Order: sequence, then structure tokens, then C-alpha cells
Amino acid sequence: MTRVTNFNAGPAALPLPALERAQRELLDLEGTGMSVLEHSHREPPYEAIHREALGLLRRMLAVPDTHHILFMQGGARAQFALVPMNLLHPGRSADHLVTGTWAKQAWEEASLVGAACGATARVAATTEREGRFVRVPAADELALDPGASYVHLTSNNTLFGTQWSVFPDVGEVPLVADMTSDLLTRPIDVARFGLIYAGAQKNLGPAGVTVVLVRKDLLDGARTDIPQIFRYRSFASSDSLFNTPPTFAIYMMRNTLAALEERGGLPALHAENQAKAARLHAAIDANPSMWRAPVERASRSMMNVVFRLPTEALEKAFLAQAAREGMVGLQGHRSVGGIRASLYNAVRLADVERLVEFMEAFERSHGG
Amino acid sequence: MTRVTNFNAGPAALPLPALERAQRELLDLEGTGMSVLEHSHREPPYEAIHREALGLLRRMLAVPDTHHILFMQGGARAQFALVPMNLLHPGRSADHLVTGTWAKQAWEEASLVGAACGATARVAATTEREGRFVRVPAADELALDPGASYVHLTSNNTLFGTQWSVFPDVGEVPLVADMTSDLLTRPIDVARFGLIYAGAQKNLGPAGVTVVLVRKDLLDGARTDIPQIFRYRSFASSDSLFNTPPTFAIYMMRNTLAALEERGGLPALHAENQAKAARLHAAIDANPSMWRAPVERASRSMMNVVFRLPTEALEKAFLAQAAREGMVGLQGHRSVGGIRASLYNAVRLADVERLVEFMEAFERSHGG
Repeated sequence: MTRVTNFNAGPAALPLPALERAQRELLDLEGTGMSVLEHSHREPPYEAIHREALGLLRRMLAVPDTHHILFMQGGARAQFALVPMNLLHPGRSADHLVTGTWAKQAWEEASLVGAACGATARVAATTEREGRFVRVPAADELALDPGASYVHLTSNNTLFGTQWSVFPDVGEVPLVADMTSDLLTRPIDVARFGLIYAGAQKNLGPAGVTVVLVRKDLLDGARTDIPQIFRYRSFASSDSLFNTPPTFAIYMMRNTLAALEERGGLPALHAENQAKAARLHAAIDANPSMWRAPVERASRSMMNVVFRLPTEALEKAFLAQAAREGMVGLQGHRSVGGIRASLYNAVRLADVERLVEFMEAFERSHGG
Repeated sequence: MTRVTNFNAGPAALPLPALERAQRELLDLEGTGMSVLEHSHREPPYEAIHREALGLLRRMLAVPDTHHILFMQGGARAQFALVPMNLLHPGRSADHLVTGTWAKQAWEEASLVGAACGATARVAATTEREGRFVRVPAADELALDPGASYVHLTSNNTLFGTQWSVFPDVGEVPLVADMTSDLLTRPIDVARFGLIYAGAQKNLGPAGVTVVLVRKDLLDGARTDIPQIFRYRSFASSDSLFNTPPTFAIYMMRNTLAALEERGGLPALHAENQAKAARLHAAIDANPSMWRAPVERASRSMMNVVFRLPTEALEKAFLAQAAREGMVGLQGHRSVGGIRASLYNAVRLADVERLVEFMEAFERSHGG
């Protein structure tokens, strides 16, 4: 078996030890005589995994006692709706910072939820120019409403490859962040956020489970005119066992988090993530006749490094040759094209070194 | 490795060949050099699995072209809200047939959704007596509203062990059924239903994916004042790739369905399910001094066989001794107690034979 080097944008590479552990015990979890897939979510073997996953997140992210950790389903897409359904009250408004495709969809979904209950989702800033986003806004570009129910932003833009390196000061208004593509890749002060959500399938585990960190006091005033299954409170009061959770996805997230903690936890992940992105950006910047990064330097993502070659034909040749050498998942999002290397936690510095060596060889053979 | 005999109520036993296949290829799916957990949902290797799972369901359940098959997240619990959000229009009402705990929760959730949009969820029948349900209603007990948006029922009641053996005639009103615990266990005429939903974790696969069959014309008039992520139409128009699906859960469902088709498909499953339930019910009925089935005979479930022993102490001894002999998952739901054997598709007739032999030995040793 030869494993490829996987730069997928998500679902994405997982740590090999996490997969090997799952493979080893897939027919028999810890001598229980059944697969984790067959265990009841109300019995000790699964409950221990569930609690361990919650504990790993709390420890690795230094989540304070002021915040719940929830496991939900539906991905960030569901959170686009659930945040306003829970926290946007009739007659109020929410501020959205629009820095990419997903941020825009979050605003559109909040607008629909608002329209149905007499509330509003405002665009408090957008960096869209001709359908593209190449930067995050500066502080003085934010037209914030001090009376907003919350401010929503997308911390990392997977599609165009931009990222908030410093989060904006929004005063007393709760800050809500979609961190689907960069939670657990750099230190964050969770206390600064009212709510953080992240689909697991980039840095935390597989597709099928969504992590939500939410300030407990925000739930006291949350709306109760919505279905119980869509209330954060239902999950907060049941340790995310309100209904049958996606048990295997949570199990694989536990395996992934345990492997990442074993590697040194957040400090080690952050250092390696910085080194990976720096290495790849340096290679791009070193030869402007072959590589071009469309994103403004200060807004460059550490997670999704997006670049172009001089022609689409060269991009096609680059992707094909990379695939032949066992490096896959490098095509840009179908809506923008180009090259995108996603450097999530399971991608190692050695993988990036390999990619850079390949780029240098490609330059030589294609006269860059 | 000794595998136990698993009578869990869900998540539940899975076919061993489906698990072995997953174990075999967990690090390398079909020579692609990565796990199915690491594959993009927008690339051919996963797309082929997704399409195969859809095709298996369509073939095995004989789903007509008039109906979409959707893969969603959130379990039946989410459908309790999504059905009225999509299909219950302001000013209209839906009829609920309340035959158990989940049916009641579906009605409660629909009531919340209705209250928020000026619609109503009516109880058109209930068999609740002193907090318990021991039968499904007779045809003449249904107070159906011919102008209802739909009639909702729960085909099998996992908790109390009742089941609709014949579905009621509801005229031209669309019939909506929660078949979480008996879809693909007996032949059904899908054309008779407006919508069927089922969490996969009983008979179809693991927790984390929900199957929805919905009549296409119902979606033409579905509500559009709800978030896009909660519209059936979003999933219907994208082949359930509206956002990142729970890829591994769908993969495991594919493995499960393939194993069940290999075993002979729905005719074989139905025959074995009938034989399993008949064998266990016969053992219960054979010795009324030891076993008592609280459910009325005509309403007995083929999936969840619920019974009591003369005392709670004997029930405890029964469960402990069964576990020592490798038979687990037999405790009744925490809200009702007693014994419950769930006989889903992955439980074989030989497993039931083993349980019956154990019951007979228990009778002898405990003087029943």
C-alpha cells in the first residue's frame, strides 16, 4: 500500500496513527466484542469516547468554563442558519463581515432567517471586488452597529485563501466566528468569542460532526420559538447526547485529537503550520515568472495557499504531473480554478518540502 | 477476537462483511492511496460510492421515479422539524398519529414549527394510556382532517415495541412516515407515501446519515421562507451534495446495503425478520409464568420485541447472565425498563435461536 500526499481542501488528510487505530479496532472496540459503529450512544464504551473528545478539545484549545463545547451535525452550512435562529431576535440585527464565498452564504442564510422573524442581517464590511476576495478588511473599513446581536466573521477563507490574522475589536457585541478551516491550528483566546463553530473535516477529524463553542450566558437569552433539535441549549444541557450523535465521526475526531496532542498539541501544530505556509509562500514568491499569489500579503492564509501559473495549460500540466508523483488534491476550487494547497494539521512539513521540490523541478522543466 | 451477539436498539449490529470491508480498505480506498475518510466529496472515488448507495436503496426498496432519495444529517429528530418547516404552510394544519414517545416528540416539534408560522399540528389519534403505548390505533379511531397538509405516523415504535402492520388509508392527503426502525425490513409501496424518513442506525448503516424518500411534486409547493440548508429541494437538486455530506456514514451505509443485497435483498430480509420475531414471540408466549409481552398481539413489532419477567430482580439477573454468555443490548429503554431485543437486519435467525435457548435454560434454572 502506497499512501499519497493529500492536499485536499476538506474532507482532508487525517493523521495516520488515528486511521491505524480505527482500523485495528474496527471489529472489536477495546475487547467489547463489537465495533464502535455498533455501540449504543447511551452505554459506557461510547460515552467514554465522547467525554474524551470533549476533554481533548477543552484542554487543547484552552476553552474556559464560561463556554460550552457542543457536538452537532450538518456542518458549517447548518450553523449559518442555527446561529441566527438561536441568537438573532425579532427586531434586532446582526453584523456580517463578508470576506469570501462561505461568509457571503452565512449572511444570505441569516438574511432568510431574519426575514422570517422580523430581524435583519447587515453587511458591516465586504471585500468583494468583481466576484473575488483577495483580502480581509482593515479595522477602519468595518461599519459596526454597537446594537447588533452579534458580529459574524469567517476566520479563514478556504476558497480564495485569505485569513484574519488578527480578529477585529467589536466591543461588547458577541463575536461569532466560522473557524471550520482553522480551529486548532493557531492559538486563539476563546474568551473573546461569543460563539465559534467548525465542521471537523479540515483540522479536527472527518466529515459528519461540527464543533460549537458557545458562551454559556448567550444561551440564557437564546430564542425558544425554534424547534428543540435546533437549539444550542438542547445540546448544552445533554452533553451533546440530545439525540443519537454521529458516533463514528466523534470517535474519529477523538482519534485525531489524541494523535495531534501526542504530537505536542496546539503549540507544536501552530509552529509546524507556520513553517509549512512560510515554506510554500517563499517558493511562490521566489519565482514570479512562474507563480503568482493573488491574495494580498497581509491577508494570506496559513491553511489554504492559493496560486496561479502563467497559463491554464501549465496549471493543468502541473496538476497532472503532481498527481503522477503522488501529490493530490491541489486543484483550486471549481469556482475559481488555479492551484490550492491545503495545509491542514495532518499535512506535515515534509509533505510541503516535497511539494516545493516538485515545484522547483517543474520550474526547471518548464522554463520558469 | 470474540464478537458478541448484539441486540442493541440503535446504533445497532452491522453485517460483519460490511465491517470487514471497511477495515480492509480503511487506509487505502481501492488503490487511491488514501482513506475514504480523507477523500473529497467532489471527486470520483467518493462520488461513485455516493451514487452506489443511492442506487442500492432505489433498487432494494423499489423506489419509483416519482420520488427523490436524499441523504441528510441530524437523524429522525431533525426530520421532526424539517417536515413541517418544508411542508406545513401558514394557516394550514398537519395530522399526527401518536403511537409512542418519538411520534409524540414529532408532534411537539411540529407544534413549535406551526406556532412560529401560524399553522397547527393536530393529534388525529393517540393510543397513550397512563404514559404508555401498547398498540396502534384501529382505522375507526383516526379523526383525520381531509384538508390536512399531511398525516404523520411512526411506522415502528422502538421503545414500547409496537408497529403498524397495515398503513391507514388517508385518501389524497400525503402520508409522511418515520421509518427509522423498520425501513428495508419489509416490503412497502413507496408510492403510497408522500415522504418517508429514516435515521440509518437501525437497519441501513451507522449513525450519522438520514435517508429521506420524498414525492417530487410535494417539493414544488414546499416553503421557501426557510434556510436553504433545511430545504429538501436543496438536497434534491444537488444529489445530496448541497454541502459536505457525512461521507464515511454514507460509505458504511453502502457497505451495509451491498451486504444485505448479497444476502438476497428485501425478500430475504423480510422472510428472516418474520422468522426471527415469530421465534422469539413463540418463546415468550410459551411460558406466561416467566415472560409477559405488554404489547397487544396485533400491534407487536417485528423489530423490537419487548417483554417483562415477574420481578425486576429477575430481569436484572436475566440481563447479567445474558451478558456473561455474550448476548448484549437486551435492556429495555431507560424510560420503561424490562427487556427489549432489537432484531434489525444484521441480527440473524441463529442469534435469536441462541437467545431462545438461553431463555429456556433461564426458565429451568429459575423455576419459571
